Amino acid sequence: MSFIHKLQNSCQKNKSYLCVGLDPDPRLMPPDTNTKEFILRIVESTSDLVCAYKINFAFFEAMGESGFQNLKYARDSIPGNIPVIADAKRADIGNTSRGYAEAIFGIMGFDAVTVNPYMGYDSILPFISYTDRGVFVLCRTSNPGASDFQDLCATNGDQTLPLYQMVSIKAREWNQHGNIGLVVGATWPEEIKIIRKQNPEMPLLIPGVGAQGGCIDLVSKYAIGPDGKMGIINSSRSIIHASAGKYYDKAARSKAEELRNQINLYRR
Amino acid sequence: MSFIHKLQNSCQKNKSYLCVGLDPDPRLMPPDTNTKEFILRIVESTSDLVCAYKINFAFFEAMGESGFQNLKYARDSIPGNIPVIADAKRADIGNTSRGYAEAIFGIMGFDAVTVNPYMGYDSILPFISYTDRGVFVLCRTSNPGASDFQDLCATNGDQTLPLYQMVSIKAREWNQHGNIGLVVGATWPEEIKIIRKQNPEMPLLIPGVGAQGGCIDLVSKYAIGPDGKMGIINSSRSIIHASAGKYYDKAARSKAEELRNQINLYRR
Repeated sequence: MSFIHKLQNSCQKNKSYLCVGLDPDPRLMPPDTNTKEFILRIVESTSDLVCAYKINFAFFEAMGESGFQNLKYARDSIPGNIPVIADAKRADIGNTSRGYAEAIFGIMGFDAVTVNPYMGYDSILPFISYTDRGVFVLCRTSNPGASDFQDLCATNGDQTLPLYQMVSIKAREWNQHGNIGLVVGATWPEEIKIIRKQNPEMPLLIPGVGAQGGCIDLVSKYAIGPDGKMGIINSSRSIIHASAGKYYDKAARSKAEELRNQINLYRR
Repeated sequence: MSFIHKLQNSCQKNKSYLCVGLDPDPRLMPPDTNTKEFILRIVESTSDLVCAYKINFAFFEAMGESGFQNLKYARDSIPGNIPVIADAKRADIGNTSRGYAEAIFGIMGFDAVTVNPYMGYDSILPFISYTDRGVFVLCRTSNPGASDFQDLCATNGDQTLPLYQMVSIKAREWNQHGNIGLVVGATWPEEIKIIRKQNPEMPLLIPGVGAQGGCIDLVSKYAIGPDGKMGIINSSRSIIHASAGKYYDKAARSKAEELRNQINLYRR
Protein backbone atom coordinates (compact mmCIF):
# COMPACT_ATOMS: atom_id res chain seq x y z
CA MET A 1 0.00 0.00 0.00
CA SER A 2 1.32 3.46 -0.81
CA PHE A 3 2.16 5.95 1.90
CA ILE A 4 -0.73 8.21 0.92
CA HIS A 5 -3.28 5.40 1.19
CA LYS A 6 -1.88 4.25 4.49
CA LEU A 7 -2.10 7.83 5.74
CA GLN A 8 -5.66 8.30 4.50
CA ASN A 9 -6.69 5.06 6.20
CA SER A 10 -5.17 5.99 9.54
CA CYS A 11 -6.73 9.48 9.35
CA GLN A 12 -10.15 7.89 8.84
CA LYS A 13 -9.81 5.06 11.31
CA ASN A 14 -8.56 7.28 14.15
CA LYS A 15 -10.49 10.37 13.07
CA SER A 16 -7.27 12.26 13.43
CA TYR A 17 -4.92 14.67 11.66
CA LEU A 18 -2.54 14.62 14.60
CA CYS A 19 1.02 13.39 14.23
CA VAL A 20 2.97 12.75 17.40
CA GLY A 21 6.69 13.49 17.25
CA LEU A 22 8.76 10.90 19.10
CA ASP A 23 11.69 13.11 20.07
CA PRO A 24 12.74 11.81 23.47
CA ASP A 25 14.77 14.42 25.35
CA PRO A 26 16.60 12.79 28.31
CA ARG A 27 16.43 16.05 30.27
CA LEU A 28 12.63 16.07 30.04
CA MET A 29 12.01 12.35 30.55
CA PRO A 30 10.86 10.99 33.91
CA PRO A 31 13.88 10.09 36.06
CA ASP A 32 15.15 6.48 35.73
CA THR A 33 13.15 5.77 32.60
CA ASN A 34 14.92 4.10 29.73
CA THR A 35 14.31 5.30 26.21
CA LYS A 36 12.73 2.12 24.90
CA GLU A 37 10.25 1.86 27.76
CA PHE A 38 9.44 5.55 27.39
CA ILE A 39 8.73 5.29 23.68
CA LEU A 40 6.71 2.11 24.01
CA ARG A 41 4.45 3.60 26.67
CA ILE A 42 3.95 6.80 24.67
CA VAL A 43 3.06 4.81 21.55
CA GLU A 44 0.73 2.44 23.40
CA SER A 45 -1.10 5.33 25.01
CA THR A 46 -1.56 7.39 21.82
CA SER A 47 -1.72 5.06 18.81
CA ASP A 48 -5.52 5.19 18.50
CA LEU A 49 -5.43 8.99 18.45
CA VAL A 50 -2.94 9.75 15.67
CA CYS A 51 -2.75 9.61 11.88
CA ALA A 52 1.04 9.23 11.93
CA TYR A 53 4.17 9.34 14.04
CA LYS A 54 7.26 11.34 13.22
CA ILE A 55 10.65 10.31 14.56
CA ASN A 56 13.40 12.90 14.63
CA PHE A 57 16.78 11.32 13.97
CA ALA A 58 18.85 13.95 15.84
CA PHE A 59 17.53 12.86 19.23
CA PHE A 60 18.67 9.30 18.53
CA GLU A 61 22.01 10.20 16.94
CA ALA A 62 22.79 12.21 20.08
CA MET A 63 22.58 8.91 22.03
CA GLY A 64 25.76 7.65 20.35
CA GLU A 65 26.19 3.91 19.97
CA SER A 66 22.71 2.99 21.27
CA GLY A 67 21.09 5.45 18.87
CA PHE A 68 20.53 3.12 15.94
CA GLN A 69 19.01 0.35 18.06
CA ASN A 70 16.73 2.76 19.88
CA LEU A 71 15.65 4.34 16.60
CA LYS A 72 14.89 0.96 15.08
CA TYR A 73 13.03 -0.01 18.25
CA ALA A 74 10.97 3.17 18.12
CA ARG A 75 10.08 2.61 14.48
CA ASP A 76 9.17 -1.04 15.10
CA SER A 77 7.09 -0.28 18.21
CA ILE A 78 4.49 1.51 16.09
CA PRO A 79 1.48 -0.56 14.93
CA GLY A 80 1.75 -1.57 11.26
CA ASN A 81 -1.30 0.41 10.14
CA ILE A 82 0.09 3.78 11.30
CA PRO A 83 2.60 5.44 8.94
CA VAL A 84 5.91 6.58 10.41
CA ILE A 85 7.81 9.59 9.08
CA ALA A 86 11.61 9.76 9.37
CA ASP A 87 12.31 13.39 10.21
CA ALA A 88 15.88 13.36 8.98
CA LYS A 89 16.02 16.38 6.62
CA ARG A 90 18.52 14.63 4.36
CA ALA A 91 19.63 15.35 0.77
CA ASP A 92 22.98 15.11 -0.99
CA ILE A 93 24.34 14.34 -4.46
CA GLY A 94 22.72 11.33 -6.15
CA ASN A 95 24.90 8.43 -5.06
CA THR A 96 24.92 9.77 -1.50
CA SER A 97 21.17 10.34 -1.29
CA ARG A 98 20.80 6.76 -2.47
CA GLY A 99 22.67 5.68 0.66
CA TYR A 100 20.37 7.74 2.90
CA ALA A 101 17.27 6.40 1.14
CA GLU A 102 18.52 2.83 1.51
CA ALA A 103 19.13 3.41 5.25
CA ILE A 104 15.77 5.07 5.93
CA PHE A 105 13.43 3.15 3.63
CA GLY A 106 15.33 -0.08 2.92
CA ILE A 107 16.96 -0.93 6.24
CA MET A 108 14.76 0.85 8.76
CA GLY A 109 11.46 0.57 6.93
CA PHE A 110 10.11 4.09 7.41
CA ASP A 111 7.02 5.06 5.41
CA ALA A 112 8.12 8.61 4.66
CA VAL A 113 11.04 11.01 5.07
CA THR A 114 11.68 14.75 5.27
CA VAL A 115 14.22 16.15 2.77
CA ASN A 116 15.93 19.51 2.21
CA PRO A 117 15.42 21.06 -1.27
CA TYR A 118 18.54 23.27 -1.42
CA MET A 119 20.52 20.85 -3.63
CA GLY A 120 17.70 20.42 -6.15
CA TYR A 121 15.99 17.62 -8.01
CA ASP A 122 18.67 14.95 -8.31
CA SER A 123 19.32 15.14 -4.55
CA ILE A 124 15.68 14.21 -3.88
CA LEU A 125 15.15 11.75 -6.74
CA PRO A 126 16.60 8.71 -4.90
CA PHE A 127 13.91 9.20 -2.23
CA ILE A 128 10.94 9.74 -4.54
CA SER A 129 12.05 6.71 -6.57
CA TYR A 130 10.67 4.64 -3.69
CA THR A 131 7.20 5.18 -5.09
CA ASP A 132 5.35 3.54 -2.20
CA ARG A 133 6.97 5.88 0.34
CA GLY A 134 6.29 9.54 1.05
CA VAL A 135 8.79 12.39 0.69
CA PHE A 136 8.14 15.68 2.50
CA VAL A 137 10.18 18.53 1.04
CA LEU A 138 11.03 21.40 3.39
CA CYS A 139 9.16 24.44 2.12
CA ARG A 140 8.51 27.05 4.83
CA THR A 141 10.01 25.85 8.09
CA SER A 142 8.73 26.70 11.57
CA ASN A 143 11.90 28.28 13.00
CA PRO A 144 12.74 32.01 13.22
CA GLY A 145 15.65 31.72 10.73
CA ALA A 146 13.27 30.39 8.06
CA SER A 147 13.00 33.92 6.70
CA ASP A 148 16.75 34.24 6.03
CA PHE A 149 16.44 32.55 2.64
CA GLN A 150 12.95 31.09 2.28
CA ASP A 151 11.37 34.56 2.09
CA LEU A 152 13.81 36.07 -0.38
CA CYS A 153 12.02 37.15 -3.51
CA ALA A 154 13.34 34.86 -6.24
CA THR A 155 12.90 34.94 -9.98
CA ASN A 156 13.33 32.21 -12.57
CA GLY A 157 12.71 34.47 -15.57
CA ASP A 158 8.98 33.72 -15.74
CA GLN A 159 7.87 34.22 -12.17
CA THR A 160 8.97 36.23 -9.17
CA LEU A 161 7.97 34.71 -5.87
CA PRO A 162 9.38 34.07 -2.40
CA LEU A 163 11.80 31.16 -2.52
CA TYR A 164 9.54 28.90 -0.45
CA GLN A 165 6.85 29.25 -3.14
CA MET A 166 9.39 28.36 -5.82
CA VAL A 167 10.03 25.19 -3.82
CA SER A 168 6.31 24.52 -3.58
CA ILE A 169 5.93 24.90 -7.36
CA LYS A 170 8.96 22.73 -8.14
CA ALA A 171 7.70 20.03 -5.78
CA ARG A 172 4.51 19.87 -7.85
CA GLU A 173 6.58 19.47 -11.04
CA TRP A 174 8.64 16.69 -9.43
CA ASN A 175 5.58 14.82 -8.18
CA GLN A 176 5.23 12.34 -11.04
CA HIS A 177 4.72 9.43 -8.62
CA GLY A 178 2.25 11.33 -6.43
CA ASN A 179 4.34 10.71 -3.32
CA ILE A 180 5.63 14.19 -2.52
CA GLY A 181 4.41 16.37 0.34
CA LEU A 182 5.61 19.66 1.81
CA VAL A 183 6.76 20.75 5.26
CA VAL A 184 5.23 24.04 6.36
CA GLY A 185 5.66 25.37 9.89
CA ALA A 186 2.53 25.98 11.96
CA THR A 187 4.08 29.27 12.98
CA TRP A 188 3.28 30.72 9.51
CA PRO A 189 -0.47 30.29 8.88
CA GLU A 190 -0.59 32.79 6.01
CA GLU A 191 2.09 30.85 4.18
CA ILE A 192 0.15 27.62 4.78
CA LYS A 193 -2.86 29.24 3.14
CA ILE A 194 -0.82 30.14 0.04
CA ILE A 195 0.87 26.75 -0.20
CA ARG A 196 -2.44 24.93 0.23
CA LYS A 197 -3.85 27.00 -2.63
CA GLN A 198 -0.86 26.09 -4.84
CA ASN A 199 -1.10 22.40 -3.92
CA PRO A 200 -4.69 21.51 -3.03
CA GLU A 201 -4.11 17.75 -2.95
CA MET A 202 -0.61 17.45 -1.53
CA PRO A 203 -0.09 16.25 2.02
CA LEU A 204 1.33 19.01 4.20
CA LEU A 205 3.39 18.09 7.25
CA ILE A 206 3.00 20.88 9.77
CA PRO A 207 5.32 20.99 12.78
CA GLY A 208 5.44 23.82 15.28
CA VAL A 209 2.22 23.70 17.29
CA GLY A 210 2.74 23.33 21.02
CA ALA A 211 6.21 24.32 22.25
CA GLN A 212 6.93 26.41 19.14
CA GLY A 213 3.68 28.33 19.45
CA GLY A 214 1.86 27.70 16.15
CA CYS A 215 -1.86 28.51 16.13
CA ILE A 216 -3.87 25.28 15.78
CA ASP A 217 -7.09 26.98 14.77
CA LEU A 218 -5.75 28.84 11.75
CA VAL A 219 -3.49 25.96 10.76
CA SER A 220 -6.37 23.47 10.79
CA LYS A 221 -8.59 25.83 8.85
CA TYR A 222 -6.04 26.49 6.11
CA ALA A 223 -4.29 23.13 5.85
CA ILE A 224 -7.21 20.74 6.37
CA GLY A 225 -10.38 22.75 5.97
CA PRO A 226 -13.96 21.50 5.98
CA ASP A 227 -13.31 18.91 3.25
CA GLY A 228 -10.50 17.22 5.16
CA LYS A 229 -7.40 17.71 3.05
CA MET A 230 -4.22 15.94 4.13
CA GLY A 231 -2.80 18.34 6.68
CA ILE A 232 -0.73 16.41 9.20
CA ILE A 233 -0.25 18.51 12.30
CA ASN A 234 2.71 17.47 14.40
CA SER A 235 3.39 18.08 18.05
CA SER A 236 6.35 16.56 19.83
CA ARG A 237 7.44 18.00 23.16
CA SER A 238 4.04 19.28 24.28
CA ILE A 239 2.66 15.74 24.06
CA ILE A 240 5.42 13.30 24.90
CA HIS A 241 6.88 15.50 27.64
CA ALA A 242 3.50 16.76 28.93
CA SER A 243 4.50 15.28 32.28
CA ALA A 244 7.74 13.96 33.75
CA GLY A 245 5.79 12.15 36.45
CA LYS A 246 4.92 8.49 36.91
CA TYR A 247 1.88 8.66 34.64
CA TYR A 248 3.56 10.48 31.77
CA ASP A 249 1.83 8.18 29.29
CA LYS A 250 -1.61 9.17 30.56
CA ALA A 251 -0.62 12.84 30.41
CA ALA A 252 0.55 12.36 26.83
CA ARG A 253 -2.73 10.66 25.91
CA SER A 254 -4.75 13.42 27.45
CA LYS A 255 -2.79 16.12 25.61
CA ALA A 256 -2.96 14.20 22.31
CA GLU A 257 -6.72 13.77 22.64
CA GLU A 258 -7.16 17.46 23.33
CA LEU A 259 -5.13 18.44 20.27
CA ARG A 260 -6.84 15.92 18.02
CA ASN A 261 -10.25 17.24 19.04
CA GLN A 262 -9.20 20.85 18.62
CA ILE A 263 -8.01 20.11 15.07
CA ASN A 264 -11.19 18.21 14.24
CA LEU A 265 -13.34 21.26 14.98
CA TYR A 266 -12.43 22.43 11.49
CA ARG A 267 -13.72 19.26 9.81
CA ARG A 268 -17.37 19.49 8.98
CA MET B 1 43.60 24.22 18.71
CA SER B 2 40.91 25.62 16.42
CA PHE B 3 39.88 23.82 13.26
CA ILE B 4 41.38 26.54 11.06
CA HIS B 5 44.78 26.30 12.74
CA LYS B 6 44.76 22.53 12.59
CA LEU B 7 43.93 22.76 8.89
CA GLN B 8 46.63 25.34 8.19
CA ASN B 9 49.18 23.16 9.96
CA SER B 10 48.27 20.02 8.02
CA CYS B 11 48.32 21.97 4.72
CA GLN B 12 51.84 23.16 5.51
CA LYS B 13 53.20 19.93 6.91
CA ASN B 14 51.93 17.77 4.04
CA LYS B 15 52.26 20.51 1.39
CA SER B 16 48.73 19.63 0.37
CA TYR B 17 45.29 21.08 -0.32
CA LEU B 18 43.89 17.64 -1.03
CA CYS B 19 41.08 16.20 1.06
CA VAL B 20 40.34 12.50 0.65
CA GLY B 21 36.70 11.49 0.98
CA LEU B 22 36.27 8.23 2.87
CA ASP B 23 33.04 7.05 1.24
CA PRO B 24 33.42 3.29 1.08
CA ASP B 25 31.08 1.79 -1.52
CA PRO B 26 30.77 -2.00 -1.00
CA ARG B 27 30.17 -2.50 -4.74
CA LEU B 28 33.51 -0.85 -5.56
CA MET B 29 35.59 -2.33 -2.74
CA PRO B 30 37.93 -5.27 -3.34
CA PRO B 31 36.07 -8.56 -2.80
CA ASP B 32 36.20 -9.99 0.74
CA THR B 33 37.53 -6.79 2.28
CA ASN B 34 35.89 -5.56 5.43
CA THR B 35 35.13 -1.88 5.83
CA LYS B 36 37.43 -1.27 8.79
CA GLU B 37 40.44 -2.87 7.11
CA PHE B 38 39.68 -0.98 3.89
CA ILE B 39 39.52 2.39 5.63
CA LEU B 40 42.60 1.77 7.74
CA ARG B 41 44.70 0.84 4.72
CA ILE B 42 43.47 3.86 2.74
CA VAL B 43 44.25 6.19 5.64
CA GLU B 44 47.69 4.67 6.29
CA SER B 45 48.63 4.97 2.63
CA THR B 46 47.48 8.58 2.18
CA SER B 47 47.77 10.44 5.50
CA ASP B 48 51.04 12.17 4.61
CA LEU B 49 49.52 13.50 1.38
CA VAL B 50 46.34 15.21 2.57
CA CYS B 51 45.32 18.35 4.44
CA ALA B 52 42.08 16.73 5.67
CA TYR B 53 39.74 13.78 5.39
CA LYS B 54 36.03 14.01 4.79
CA ILE B 55 33.71 11.22 5.88
CA ASN B 56 30.29 11.02 4.27
CA PHE B 57 27.70 9.76 6.76
CA ALA B 58 25.32 8.27 4.15
CA PHE B 59 27.73 5.48 3.25
CA PHE B 60 27.88 4.44 6.90
CA GLU B 61 24.18 4.85 7.65
CA ALA B 62 23.48 2.54 4.70
CA MET B 63 25.37 -0.18 6.62
CA GLY B 64 22.61 -0.37 9.21
CA GLU B 65 23.54 -1.49 12.71
CA SER B 66 27.30 -1.62 12.07
CA GLY B 67 27.26 1.92 10.64
CA PHE B 68 27.93 3.84 13.83
CA GLN B 69 30.84 1.63 14.90
CA ASN B 70 32.42 1.76 11.45
CA LEU B 71 31.98 5.53 11.30
CA LYS B 72 33.57 5.97 14.71
CA TYR B 73 36.36 3.61 13.68
CA ALA B 74 36.97 5.59 10.49
CA ARG B 75 37.10 8.86 12.40
CA ASP B 76 39.44 7.42 15.04
CA SER B 77 41.75 5.80 12.48
CA ILE B 78 42.90 9.22 11.27
CA PRO B 79 46.09 10.63 12.85
CA GLY B 80 45.37 13.33 15.44
CA ASN B 81 47.07 16.12 13.50
CA ILE B 82 44.82 15.75 10.42
CA PRO B 83 41.39 17.42 10.65
CA VAL B 84 38.36 15.29 9.81
CA ILE B 85 35.21 16.76 8.28
CA ALA B 86 31.80 15.14 8.92
CA ASP B 87 30.02 15.40 5.59
CA ALA B 88 26.53 15.10 7.02
CA LYS B 89 24.71 18.11 5.53
CA ARG B 90 22.60 18.51 8.64
CA ALA B 91 20.46 21.43 9.91
CA ASP B 92 17.13 21.60 11.71
CA ILE B 93 15.36 23.81 14.25
CA GLY B 94 17.53 24.86 17.20
CA ASN B 95 16.95 22.08 19.74
CA THR B 96 17.28 19.47 17.00
CA SER B 97 20.47 20.90 15.50
CA ARG B 98 21.87 20.84 19.04
CA GLY B 99 21.35 17.06 18.99
CA TYR B 100 23.18 16.70 15.67
CA ALA B 101 26.04 18.94 16.86
CA GLU B 102 26.36 16.90 20.06
CA ALA B 103 26.48 13.67 18.04
CA ILE B 104 29.03 14.91 15.50
CA PHE B 105 31.29 17.12 17.61
CA GLY B 106 30.64 15.90 21.16
CA ILE B 107 30.29 12.14 20.80
CA MET B 108 32.22 11.41 17.61
CA GLY B 109 34.83 14.14 17.88
CA PHE B 110 34.80 15.45 14.32
CA ASP B 111 36.74 18.66 13.63
CA ALA B 112 34.21 20.12 11.18
CA VAL B 113 30.81 19.49 9.63
CA THR B 114 28.88 20.36 6.48
CA VAL B 115 25.47 22.02 7.01
CA ASN B 116 22.56 23.02 4.79
CA PRO B 117 21.58 26.73 4.88
CA TYR B 118 17.91 26.45 3.79
CA MET B 119 16.51 26.77 7.34
CA GLY B 120 18.60 29.85 8.17
CA TYR B 121 20.73 31.14 11.01
CA ASP B 122 19.25 29.46 14.08
CA SER B 123 19.53 26.05 12.39
CA ILE B 124 23.30 26.53 12.02
CA LEU B 125 24.00 28.34 15.28
CA PRO B 126 24.30 25.17 17.42
CA PHE B 127 27.16 24.05 15.16
CA ILE B 128 29.06 27.37 15.01
CA SER B 129 28.72 27.64 18.78
CA TYR B 130 31.43 24.96 18.96
CA THR B 131 33.98 27.68 18.29
CA ASP B 132 36.97 25.32 17.96
CA ARG B 133 35.24 23.34 15.19
CA GLY B 134 34.65 24.23 11.56
CA VAL B 135 31.25 24.59 9.86
CA PHE B 136 31.03 24.38 6.06
CA VAL B 137 27.79 25.86 4.77
CA LEU B 138 26.50 24.49 1.44
CA CYS B 139 26.73 27.34 -1.05
CA ARG B 140 26.97 26.14 -4.68
CA THR B 141 26.88 22.36 -4.74
CA SER B 142 28.54 20.14 -7.36
CA ASN B 143 25.45 18.26 -8.59
CA PRO B 144 23.34 19.04 -11.69
CA GLY B 145 20.25 19.98 -9.62
CA ALA B 146 22.24 22.71 -7.85
CA SER B 147 20.82 25.19 -10.34
CA ASP B 148 17.17 24.46 -9.41
CA PHE B 149 17.27 26.92 -6.51
CA GLN B 150 20.86 28.05 -5.93
CA ASP B 151 20.94 30.00 -9.21
CA LEU B 152 17.58 31.72 -8.82
CA CYS B 153 18.03 35.46 -8.77
CA ALA B 154 17.05 36.53 -5.27
CA THR B 155 16.51 39.93 -3.76
CA ASN B 156 16.53 41.07 -0.16
CA GLY B 157 15.51 44.67 -0.90
CA ASP B 158 19.09 45.97 -1.07
CA GLN B 159 20.75 43.50 -3.39
CA THR B 160 19.73 41.17 -6.19
CA LEU B 161 22.00 38.17 -6.60
CA PRO B 162 21.81 34.43 -7.27
CA LEU B 163 20.71 32.62 -4.12
CA TYR B 164 24.10 30.93 -3.65
CA GLN B 165 25.71 34.37 -3.40
CA MET B 166 23.12 35.42 -0.82
CA VAL B 167 24.22 32.38 1.17
CA SER B 168 27.87 33.34 0.75
CA ILE B 169 27.15 36.87 2.02
CA LYS B 170 25.06 35.65 4.97
CA ALA B 171 27.78 33.17 5.92
CA ARG B 172 30.19 36.10 6.23
CA GLU B 173 27.73 37.93 8.51
CA TRP B 174 27.31 34.83 10.67
CA ASN B 175 31.05 34.25 10.99
CA GLN B 176 31.62 35.99 14.32
CA HIS B 177 33.76 33.10 15.60
CA GLY B 178 35.79 32.80 12.39
CA ASN B 179 34.90 29.13 12.04
CA ILE B 180 32.63 29.15 8.98
CA GLY B 181 33.59 27.89 5.54
CA LEU B 182 31.62 27.30 2.34
CA VAL B 183 31.02 24.28 0.13
CA VAL B 184 31.41 25.02 -3.57
CA GLY B 185 31.39 22.30 -6.20
CA ALA B 186 34.47 21.90 -8.40
CA THR B 187 32.07 21.57 -11.32
CA TRP B 188 31.40 25.35 -11.22
CA PRO B 189 34.77 27.15 -11.46
CA GLU B 190 33.26 30.53 -12.36
CA GLU B 191 31.13 30.42 -9.22
CA ILE B 192 34.21 29.53 -7.17
CA LYS B 193 35.92 32.64 -8.56
CA ILE B 194 33.01 34.84 -7.45
CA ILE B 195 32.70 33.26 -4.01
CA ARG B 196 36.44 33.50 -3.43
CA LYS B 197 36.26 37.20 -4.27
CA GLN B 198 33.38 37.67 -1.78
CA ASN B 199 35.21 35.71 0.93
CA PRO B 200 38.96 35.99 0.43
CA GLU B 201 39.90 34.40 3.76
CA MET B 202 37.21 31.77 4.23
CA PRO B 203 38.04 28.09 3.80
CA LEU B 204 36.27 26.63 0.80
CA LEU B 205 35.50 22.92 0.72
CA ILE B 206 35.41 21.84 -2.91
CA PRO B 207 34.02 18.42 -3.80
CA GLY B 208 33.47 17.21 -7.34
CA VAL B 209 36.88 16.64 -8.91
CA GLY B 210 37.45 13.12 -10.15
CA ALA B 211 34.27 11.07 -10.72
CA GLN B 212 32.09 14.20 -10.94
CA GLY B 213 34.38 15.81 -13.52
CA GLY B 214 35.42 19.13 -11.94
CA CYS B 215 38.45 20.84 -13.52
CA ILE B 216 41.36 20.78 -11.08
CA ASP B 217 43.37 23.44 -12.85
CA LEU B 218 40.72 26.17 -12.77
CA VAL B 219 39.55 25.19 -9.31
CA SER B 220 43.07 25.40 -7.87
CA LYS B 221 43.71 28.72 -9.58
CA TYR B 222 40.51 30.34 -8.31
CA ALA B 223 40.15 28.75 -4.87
CA ILE B 224 43.78 28.59 -3.74
CA GLY B 225 45.78 30.81 -6.06
CA PRO B 226 49.44 31.72 -5.84
CA ASP B 227 49.18 32.94 -2.25
CA GLY B 228 47.76 29.65 -0.98
CA LYS B 229 44.29 30.47 0.31
CA MET B 230 42.37 27.73 2.14
CA GLY B 231 40.80 25.82 -0.75
CA ILE B 232 40.30 22.21 0.29
CA ILE B 233 39.82 20.09 -2.80
CA ASN B 234 38.06 16.81 -2.13
CA SER B 235 38.11 13.64 -4.13
CA SER B 236 36.48 10.45 -2.92
CA ARG B 237 35.76 7.66 -5.41
CA SER B 238 38.60 8.43 -7.82
CA ILE B 239 41.10 7.93 -4.98
CA ILE B 240 39.75 5.32 -2.60
CA HIS B 241 38.29 3.18 -5.38
CA ALA B 242 41.13 3.78 -7.85
CA SER B 243 41.60 0.00 -7.84
CA ALA B 244 39.56 -2.93 -6.59
CA GLY B 245 42.64 -5.15 -6.72
CA LYS B 246 44.89 -6.47 -3.97
CA TYR B 247 47.02 -3.31 -3.84
CA TYR B 248 44.14 -0.85 -3.73
CA ASP B 249 45.95 1.14 -1.04
CA LYS B 250 48.96 1.69 -3.29
CA ALA B 251 46.66 2.70 -6.15
CA ALA B 252 44.92 5.18 -3.84
CA ARG B 253 48.27 6.62 -2.75
CA SER B 254 49.42 7.00 -6.32
CA LYS B 255 46.20 8.78 -7.33
CA ALA B 256 46.29 11.02 -4.23
CA GLU B 257 49.89 12.00 -4.92
CA GLU B 258 49.07 12.84 -8.51
CA LEU B 259 46.13 15.05 -7.50
CA ARG B 260 48.07 16.78 -4.73
CA ASN B 261 50.87 17.63 -7.13
CA GLN B 262 48.49 18.83 -9.81
CA ILE B 263 46.83 21.19 -7.29
CA ASN B 264 50.19 22.44 -6.03
CA LEU B 265 51.16 23.66 -9.51
CA TYR B 266 49.07 26.73 -8.75
CA ARG B 267 51.00 27.56 -5.60
CA ARG B 268 53.96 29.76 -6.31
